[in-house]
Amino acid sequence: MTDRLSRLQSKLSAEGVDLLALAPGAHLAWLLGFNPHGDERPLLFCVTPESAGFLMPALEADSARQHTDLPFHCWVDDAGPQAAFDALLEDLGAGNAGSIALDETMRADHAALVQDRLMNAKRQFTESTVGAMRMRKDEAEFAILKHNAQTADRAMQAAWGAMQVGMTELEVAGIVKDAFRDQGVAPLFWIIGTGGNGAFPHHQTGETRLKEGDAVIMDIGGGVDSYCSDITRMAVLGAAPEGFDEVHAVVNAAVEAALQAARPGVKAHVLDDAARAVITEAGYGDYFVHRTGHGLGTTVHEPPYITASSQTVLEEGMVFSIEPGIYLPDRFGLRLEEIVYVRADGPEILSDLPRDVRVVG
Amino acid sequence: MTDRLSRLQSKLSAEGVDLLALAPGAHLAWLLGFNPHGDERPLLFCVTPESAGFLMPALEADSARQHTDLPFHCWVDDAGPQAAFDALLEDLGAGNAGSIALDETMRADHAALVQDRLMNAKRQFTESTVGAMRMRKDEAEFAILKHNAQTADRAMQAAWGAMQVGMTELEVAGIVKDAFRDQGVAPLFWIIGTGGNGAFPHHQTGETRLKEGDAVIMDIGGGVDSYCSDITRMAVLGAAPEGFDEVHAVVNAAVEAALQAARPGVKAHVLDDAARAVITEAGYGDYFVHRTGHGLGTTVHEPPYITASSQTVLEEGMVFSIEPGIYLPDRFGLRLEEIVYVRADGPEILSDLPRDVRVVG
Repeated sequence: MTDRLSRLQSKLSAEGVDLLALAPGAHLAWLLGFNPHGDERPLLFCVTPESAGFLMPALEADSARQHTDLPFHCWVDDAGPQAAFDALLEDLGAGNAGSIALDETMRADHAALVQDRLMNAKRQFTESTVGAMRMRKDEAEFAILKHNAQTADRAMQAAWGAMQVGMTELEVAGIVKDAFRDQGVAPLFWIIGTGGNGAFPHHQTGETRLKEGDAVIMDIGGGVDSYCSDITRMAVLGAAPEGFDEVHAVVNAAVEAALQAARPGVKAHVLDDAARAVITEAGYGDYFVHRTGHGLGTTVHEPPYITASSQTVLEEGMVFSIEPGIYLPDRFGLRLEEIVYVRADGPEILSDLPRDVRVVG
Repeated sequence: MTDRLSRLQSKLSAEGVDLLALAPGAHLAWLLGFNPHGDERPLLFCVTPESAGFLMPALEADSARQHTDLPFHCWVDDAGPQAAFDALLEDLGAGNAGSIALDETMRADHAALVQDRLMNAKRQFTESTVGAMRMRKDEAEFAILKHNAQTADRAMQAAWGAMQVGMTELEVAGIVKDAFRDQGVAPLFWIIGTGGNGAFPHHQTGETRLKEGDAVIMDIGGGVDSYCSDITRMAVLGAAPEGFDEVHAVVNAAVEAALQAARPGVKAHVLDDAARAVITEAGYGDYFVHRTGHGLGTTVHEPPYITASSQTVLEEGMVFSIEPGIYLPDRFGLRLEEIVYVRADGPEILSDLPRDVRVVG
């Protein structure tokens, strides 16, 4: 972790960032290996190319001190954070920072504390600093992500093994969650969309019952050792609905096209272009309403984002989803999602599950 | 809910706020009765005194449309949100808003979308608008909060009934969580601090085992029907540690002093002053390191905050905690927490549990 902090400080220097401010959350946890309790009280970790320190609510200090020796500037509820923040900036030599980077997930009122004090600073978020660093995963991180992907494969299979006509989406979700927990994994999300519900990409899993002939989309993920999994596969109850097999073949070909393009040195938009071209040429372009993918690591959505406009150049060690989809209102939604690790010679898929439709029930 | 929106618009008008922007979260859920999925994609609900509408990621639109008829300005991943946001402001007649209020919990990058577009607007957060409205709970909300408090009482009693020397803090937390779940309540937090751990106000419940003679602080809460509970009580395993009984009497007297002061028309700081005076006079002022309380409702911490500097005038229907504490390093922490509902003639305590120390094990 010390290594990550010193690498970050070199990065700040290279990028011309005078001050980086992080809030409790994924960036801070990745950087220092612990995540202090965050609430409405401003708690900031501030880093310059030369120094680092915390703005720390007094009542968090003792707990946080068990995890770090870095300097704290504490404030008590009745005084408020302003004086302690000013003192921290003074100590860090950042009182006149001309270029600041803010944790994009920070609460707006906490960001205002920084921005109002450094009114004339040029602001960016973390995409060129800690965000860029977190995009590349090392082999140890790969091993955790691979293990996680296999637990998600088993959770998917557990649901397929139990799914029946008449069951509700929430009951299917319950099977997924139990299967994660049985493997020591915390369930993070579970989109179970049967029939027309699947046509909402972010459907809220509910009381709808599975019917004969429904296509069921399942997009699930869990967390273990601070890292996440994320997979989407399709099942059908008995016979597939009309048009399903054709759409499945199109989406699978879109996945293949993006996989083919996923190599170091390629810009991320090339993958989106490749997947989108397959779907557009098949006549379903208007029904692919989202980006092709997102990075995955200690959070479920993080850079690199695989969009039509992304100029991010892929590098070895990047981990992201490839998940094109076609959503046909009132009929079904069909998405297939792989997580890949970019290696010198191309993408390694983390899941061991085939993308074939699974007939269940 | 329509009523809440129209009341909010009157409030915006009265406070001179041209545009309020809310993100997915507690404010929006309270206002409209549903909480759209929030992630890195900007999703904003914008309100002016005359109009209202959403900046909506395209892939959330269908799900959200099931809950509201208000206008959507949708954007797709590849285009990004800027053009849709500009069109929304145009539609709302807020393109030149001079005074804006932002959801303080909004992500910094989403807040930047609003602020960068309205560079010259005067910015505030929600304390004078939706925050002020949420502070006063009606009798229906009181009934839910009262019910919730009783479920927390039972979870506390379940833990007391099972606590034994040798058990870990996490095992005690497990009993609390099960007791909440058995009542249909989602556990929200559980600070279990035994012995010296209790001296960290926000101790992370861990593997420390309960010892004979330990004082154990338990601060727990759950959520049901979108509202929260929050209670802190003390137990001891066998004989209380040296000095415990005196400190308990001081903290209890501090609670009483704040209760005595809690009436409509009184400023919130008067309650903090009253509790702090009792503790300071007893010689423990340096060990009371936090504010006296916080509001409670659909979130665990919300206005009004009961601090030494708060000028908020208490009104009928406000709900907040009174929770002074004394934290003696390496010995124990002692906090007693009541949630009160402010009535014309004084505070009504929600919990039915006495604040006496409970001898267990």
